[in-house]
Amino acid sequence: MIKTLHVSVPGQGLHEFTDQVRSLVASSHVKDGLCTLFIQHTSASLLIQENADPSVRHDLEAWLNRLVPENDPLYTHTLEGPDDMPAHIKASLTASSLSIPVINGQLALGTWQGIYLWEHRYYSGNRNCIVHISS
Amino acid sequence: MIKTLHVSVPGQGLHEFTDQVRSLVASSHVKDGLCTLFIQHTSASLLIQENADPSVRHDLEAWLNRLVPENDPLYTHTLEGPDDMPAHIKASLTASSLSIPVINGQLALGTWQGIYLWEHRYYSGNRNCIVHISS
Amino acid sequence: MIKTLHVSVPGQGLHEFTDQVRSLVASSHVKDGLCTLFIQHTSASLLIQENADPSVRHDLEAWLNRLVPENDPLYTHTLEGPDDMPAHIKASLTASSLSIPVINGQLALGTWQGIYLWEHRYYSGNRNCIVHISS
Repeated sequence: MIKTLHVSVPGQGLHEFTDQVRSLVASSHVKDGLCTLFIQHTSASLLIQENADPSVRHDLEAWLNRLVPENDPLYTHTLEGPDDMPAHIKASLTASSLSIPVINGQLALGTWQGIYLWEHRYYSGNRNCIVHISS
Repeated sequence: MIKTLHVSVPGQGLHEFTDQVRSLVASSHVKDGLCTLFIQHTSASLLIQENADPSVRHDLEAWLNRLVPENDPLYTHTLEGPDDMPAHIKASLTASSLSIPVINGQLALGTWQGIYLWEHRYYSGNRNCIVHISS
Repeated sequence: MIKTLHVSVPGQGLHEFTDQVRSLVASSHVKDGLCTLFIQHTSASLLIQENADPSVRHDLEAWLNRLVPENDPLYTHTLEGPDDMPAHIKASLTASSLSIPVINGQLALGTWQGIYLWEHRYYSGNRNCIVHISS
């Protein structure tokens, strides 16, 4: 089964969409298999991270924003705005695709793991994440 | 075939478990296919790196520890100890899942490649890595 | 279908090989499935990035070279040349494997996405990337 998820992002940051992936896995009726996610963008990425304490995501974003600041004099690609080149760099340091096993019809995530779309631009709207589920 | 490997980690650092994955591939009797690893934790990750000269792993750890130090005043997530937030950041910069082709019943690793579990916390015990092998 | 692509790299940097992967997908006759790439090296990596404006790749390389410079006094692994340890670190921060869905016989890349081999060493020659395509 292959479906495109439209993940709604309200702006820059980490947006959990575990439940959308879980629904697809349920509707696929795959009992034991593999669920692979692929993001069709180069300034947003995929991340598995802790979904318990929001301070983890806060610090993660603050840290990455400091590592890859806007308006770095190194950048020559500046025509698309101050958030564009940092977004490409952040996307390159994180994942474009992720594979999660499916066991007994369920995503085999660890207890504290959630699936996030990491929007690196000042953007609100939908991002496309393709989901491939095989048995 | 889907199995959970319990990878024993003696502490923070890079721990090779290529042989455990090789054994699973052999027992799967898959001749040509794909072996996908997924780690069920958010403060440890997976890495393919050189398994020849140990100084590579030493420098890799030292470098990442310097990039993501403990006790950074930026962190607000500090209740779980000084190694916790750096571990989440390090895990976010490295891989949660990895896929390695299987050719002629063997993992198609390059000559110098080994599979590592990168433990980012001060932790000793077992970490769960799910292995999915398909033909 | 599993094939090894020999990707020609003229030197350090980002080298697009999307067309080589597209050709394999076409010859596989897989209509809907998954294409997984795996690089058999520890000082080169795989990247999905923008293939429109070359300044993105230029800035990406310049940024990573500054983050992971040569001749850092931290390095103990120095016998294989000043570009070797930085190459291992850069490869660890980026992807060894990537999975891209195949829809209607085509790689489901986004409009601006290309597939790159990121050569981190001063090296010219071929690098091996294994391609696994399943339906």
